[in-house]
Amino acid sequence: MDSTDRRIPADANAPVQTLHAGRWLSLRQRGRWEYVERNNPGGAVIIVAVTPEDRVLFVEQYRVPIRQFTIEMPAGLIGDVAGQEQEGVLLAAQRELEEETGWRCGRVTFVHAGPSSSGMSTENIAFVRALDLVKVGPGGGDETENIVVHEVPHNEAGAWLFARAAEGYSIDPKLFAGLWFLEHGLGDQAE
Amino acid sequence: MDSTDRRIPADANAPVQTLHAGRWLSLRQRGRWEYVERNNPGGAVIIVAVTPEDRVLFVEQYRVPIRQFTIEMPAGLIGDVAGQEQEGVLLAAQRELEEETGWRCGRVTFVHAGPSSSGMSTENIAFVRALDLVKVGPGGGDETENIVVHEVPHNEAGAWLFARAAEGYSIDPKLFAGLWFLEHGLGDQAE
Repeated sequence: MDSTDRRIPADANAPVQTLHAGRWLSLRQRGRWEYVERNNPGGAVIIVAVTPEDRVLFVEQYRVPIRQFTIEMPAGLIGDVAGQEQEGVLLAAQRELEEETGWRCGRVTFVHAGPSSSGMSTENIAFVRALDLVKVGPGGGDETENIVVHEVPHNEAGAWLFARAAEGYSIDPKLFAGLWFLEHGLGDQAE
Repeated sequence: MDSTDRRIPADANAPVQTLHAGRWLSLRQRGRWEYVERNNPGGAVIIVAVTPEDRVLFVEQYRVPIRQFTIEMPAGLIGDVAGQEQEGVLLAAQRELEEETGWRCGRVTFVHAGPSSSGMSTENIAFVRALDLVKVGPGGGDETENIVVHEVPHNEAGAWLFARAAEGYSIDPKLFAGLWFLEHGLGDQAE
């Protein structure tokens, strides 16, 4: 992308100032730009998981920042193990899927990673596909979480999400990206 | 959702502290939770737009927070006009589409709105569908922007995004949500 380098604004190389370093998040400034950064730099992973009965797994929980119940796909933060970035994503996904839903997966494949809001945050979100699911426990998350699991027939998942939105649940648009990956077979084959 | 109220954590009602109020963003804390909030509370809108030649509109620009070139759908911030929230979204979408791409749309329909990262931000993202497109100018954004427009055949859009990711562009996963809305006909009919 060398020919486009003149399109990089001058303040892209301005020094970074930390406006406030919190326990979990830091607010930073570079030139004109303010953005937030997780203190855990590993990012997050969203898990596209379908049971042997062709049901998509969703989790319901309360999110304090927006003060609403949300419907999400199983997800979690990734630990920061240098040199094992991909392994970090896949292992975190396996752990979080089982913790939140009670389903263990035999394989996890990487699908895509990108920014959740590139104008205001450095957060990077990976999508993975969980394969070979076996039910091993009740799910519900760890002791700090209170998660309800929903198993929704694959061909009804989009309509089900819109119905939950109409009921007042907050639905992250990225869930429809998960459905797009599923419908297009992304991550179906082990790499 | 009354029956699930016991699942709301106690700190959901803790008072909000502002850890830092920046020019554009504020870092806040409620109980254990830290999150970022735009000082412009109207949120953002992403525009799913297809030309009469069945080409999906994407824009390429540099994003300072992540220091990468991104591929996005046309998008922008929404002004804060109380009592005109939906009109605000639709008018902002029309203006941003024309400014960024040079395409004017005859109609805009609302598709979905939800959080971009509900664990760390209050940002709300609306998706709209732009209909009846007519080319009226060069696009490229306002004087502070330097935007390249890409028009990609609809049935190649997913593969094209993965090819750009392989080249090093940063691709927001929400773009695949936009493709899902398009493939499922969301917003095709005026309301």
